[in-house]
Amino acid sequence: MSSSTITIVKNANKKPKPQSKEIAFGRTFTDHMFVMDYEADKGWHEPRIVPYEPLTLDPAAMIFHYGQTVFEGMKAYRTEDDRILLFRPDQNIKRLNKSSERLSIPQVDEERVMEYLIELIRLEQDWVPDFEGTSLYIRPFIIGTEPSLAVAPSKTYKLMVILSPVGPYFKGGLKPVQINVEKQFTRAVKGGTGMAKTAGNYSSAYQAQAKAYEEGLADVLWLDGIEKRYIEEVGSMNIFFKIDGEVVTPALSGSILKGITRMSIIELLHKWDIPVTERKVSIDEIYQAYQDGKLEEVFGTGTAAVISPVGQLNWSGEKMDINNGEIGELSQKLYDTITGIQRGSVEDTENWTIEV
Amino acid sequence: MSSSTITIVKNANKKPKPQSKEIAFGRTFTDHMFVMDYEADKGWHEPRIVPYEPLTLDPAAMIFHYGQTVFEGMKAYRTEDDRILLFRPDQNIKRLNKSSERLSIPQVDEERVMEYLIELIRLEQDWVPDFEGTSLYIRPFIIGTEPSLAVAPSKTYKLMVILSPVGPYFKGGLKPVQINVEKQFTRAVKGGTGMAKTAGNYSSAYQAQAKAYEEGLADVLWLDGIEKRYIEEVGSMNIFFKIDGEVVTPALSGSILKGITRMSIIELLHKWDIPVTERKVSIDEIYQAYQDGKLEEVFGTGTAAVISPVGQLNWSGEKMDINNGEIGELSQKLYDTITGIQRGSVEDTENWTIEV
Ligand SMILES: Cc1ncc(COP(=O)(O)O)c(C=O)c1O
Ligand SMILES: Cc1ncc(COP(=O)(O)O)c(C=O)c1O
Repeated sequence: MSSSTITIVKNANKKPKPQSKEIAFGRTFTDHMFVMDYEADKGWHEPRIVPYEPLTLDPAAMIFHYGQTVFEGMKAYRTEDDRILLFRPDQNIKRLNKSSERLSIPQVDEERVMEYLIELIRLEQDWVPDFEGTSLYIRPFIIGTEPSLAVAPSKTYKLMVILSPVGPYFKGGLKPVQINVEKQFTRAVKGGTGMAKTAGNYSSAYQAQAKAYEEGLADVLWLDGIEKRYIEEVGSMNIFFKIDGEVVTPALSGSILKGITRMSIIELLHKWDIPVTERKVSIDEIYQAYQDGKLEEVFGTGTAAVISPVGQLNWSGEKMDINNGEIGELSQKLYDTITGIQRGSVEDTENWTIEV
Repeated sequence: MSSSTITIVKNANKKPKPQSKEIAFGRTFTDHMFVMDYEADKGWHEPRIVPYEPLTLDPAAMIFHYGQTVFEGMKAYRTEDDRILLFRPDQNIKRLNKSSERLSIPQVDEERVMEYLIELIRLEQDWVPDFEGTSLYIRPFIIGTEPSLAVAPSKTYKLMVILSPVGPYFKGGLKPVQINVEKQFTRAVKGGTGMAKTAGNYSSAYQAQAKAYEEGLADVLWLDGIEKRYIEEVGSMNIFFKIDGEVVTPALSGSILKGITRMSIIELLHKWDIPVTERKVSIDEIYQAYQDGKLEEVFGTGTAAVISPVGQLNWSGEKMDINNGEIGELSQKLYDTITGIQRGSVEDTENWTIEV
C-alpha cells in the first residue's frame, strides 16, 4: 500500500448531531478526524481517517514547549438543494504551507491534502448542519511532536483535521460591533510571525481582548508594532474602511494575515468597479476622515463572520460612531454576495466554491 | 484530604540512568513527573507525582491551537559531598507567574509549587548525575487544556514538571562561540510577549537560527523590533559587553527575558565593585567600541551554559573578533564563581542555593 493512500477506521459510536442552530462555536466535534504523520526519512505518511479521539503525546513533545504549530480555519456550507460547498479551500491549504514555512515546518502536498479533506467531509457530510446561518467549521493543524527540549525544529509532526458544526456568527443577522483601538499591547511586528496562522499570535492577544471586554467592547483593532500608528487587523479579521466613496484596507505588511475573505472582497470590488486600495492606513487618517464626515463604513472580514460591520471605534477615549451604528450598504451587499456564493444561492462566477 | 496535599504514585519500572557525562540535552527523562490541574471553581488542585507517562488530550485542547502556555528552566546540581542544590528556584517560580500573567494563565501559589518541586527532586535524587559539568534540568510548564476553538483563555490548565539529566554545555570547559546579529527577523517587540517565557517566542526564532547555522555560526543576537538597532538578547541567553573596563547589558525593555543568571551576575559585579549598567545598547555602539579596540569581552548568560563567551559577532558581513576569540578574564571569573556556588565549592554568601 502506498503511503499516500488514505485508510479509514469508522467510528461505531455516533454522537448526536445539533438539533437547532444554537450551537456554541468550536465545542462540538464530529465522529471522525483526519491524521497524518511526518518523519524526516518518510516524509508525510499514513494519512488516515479515524474516530475522533484523544491524542497521546509525550510531555516533552515540542508543541508543549516551543510552540511549533500552524493551523487553518474554513467552513463547509449546505446549500438549499442539499449540496455541500467549500469556499476557496485551495487558498487555505496554500496558506497552511506559507505559515509552515515561517515556523520551519515541512510543507505538505497541497493537492493530496485537498483530497484528504474532501474525503473526510464526505464521510462526515451529515454533520454539515442545515439551519440558517450554520456551517461545519474545518480546523486543520500541524504540531511538532518530537519529545525533546532542544530549541530546534521538531523532527516529527502530526497534521490533523477536526470538524465542528457551528451556529450563525450573529444571531438574527448582521450586527455592528464596537471595537477598541489597542495602544499598549502589540500583536505582531515586521520580521515576526504575524503573517502566519500560528498559535502564539492568538494567546498573546488575550490581555488586550480582556481590556476591550471590560470596556464593553467586542474586539481589538491592532496597530503596527513599530510606530503604533498604522492599522493592521482586528482579532481574527482583516479590516476595511470606506472613505468618501473609496475602499481602503491595510496592505500586507508582513505582520498581518492574508485573509481569504479579504482577498475575495478585493476581487469582488474590482469586478464591481468600486475603487479599492491596499495601502498603509493610519489611525490618524481614519480619525480625520471621521471628523470630516467622510468615514462611511468600516467592516472586519474573516471566515467566522464573513463581514462584521463596525459601529464604533474607540481610540483612547475618542469614540468614532460609524454610519450611526448601522450596517452600511456596501457591507450588506458584500455579505449577501459572499454568503450567497458560499450557500449556492448566488452564481459563483469566479469558481470559488468546490462541491464535496 | 486537602486538595493541596500531594499524592505520590511510584513508578515500578525504573529506567536506566546515564552512565557517562555524554548526555544529549533534553532527550532523557526521569521516572516520575509532577502534575497539577486547574479548573475555575476548584483553582489549582490535585498536586501529584506520578510515573513519567504520555499525556492524553483532546485534539481541540487549546494548547494545540492558540498557544496559551508558559514554561521555566532551572537545574539541580550535585555537590562534591553529595548534597543536591537548586540555584534561586524561587526566582524561576516567580517568573513563571509573571509569564502566566502575560498569557492570561491563572497564578500559582509560589511557596506550594516550591514544595512540590522539592518533593519531586527528592524522589528523583538518584537522577541528579555526578559527572563533571552535569546536572538535572527541571522543566515546569503550564498548558491550556480546554477543548474549545474559541479564541479566549482556557478554563482549564495543567501544570507539569518533567526532569531531564543533562551533560556539560561545553564539552571540555568554556568555549567561545560565534554569533550572528539578525537583521531580517524579529523575536519580540514592545507590547508583545518577549518578557514572558512562552512557547511562541522560541519556534518563531527557528528561521533565523537556521540562517546562522548555515553560515557556521552558533546562535542569533536579536535586535529590537522597532529600530533594529538596540541589542536585546541571544537565543536563550541574555548578553553582556565589557567595554573599556565597564560592563553593560541591555535594560529590561519589556521585550527581553529577565534572566536569573543575568540578575545574579549584576549582583556579583556590584559586590565586586565592577561598574555595571543596564541601559540601551546599540549595535553601532558595539561596533564603534570594537573599532576603537575597547570591546574587551562579550558573553551570553543563562541557565544552560551559565556563561557563554562570544568570540565573534557577525554584523551584516562585518566580523568583530573579540578578545582574540579567547575567554575573557571576567567571563571566566563569573563562570567559576556561579558554577562554584551552584556546586557548593564556592561559599554562597548571597543565599542563592536551596538544598533539596
Ligand atoms: C489574525 C487573522 N486575521 C484575519 C483573518 C481572516 O482570514 P480569513 O478571511 O482567511 O478567514 C483570520 C482568520 O482566519 C485571522 O486569524
Ligand atoms: C529568551 C531567553 N533569554 C534569556 C534566558 C536566560 O535566563 P536564565 O538566566 O534565567 O536562564 C533564557 C533562558 O532561560 C531565555 O529563554
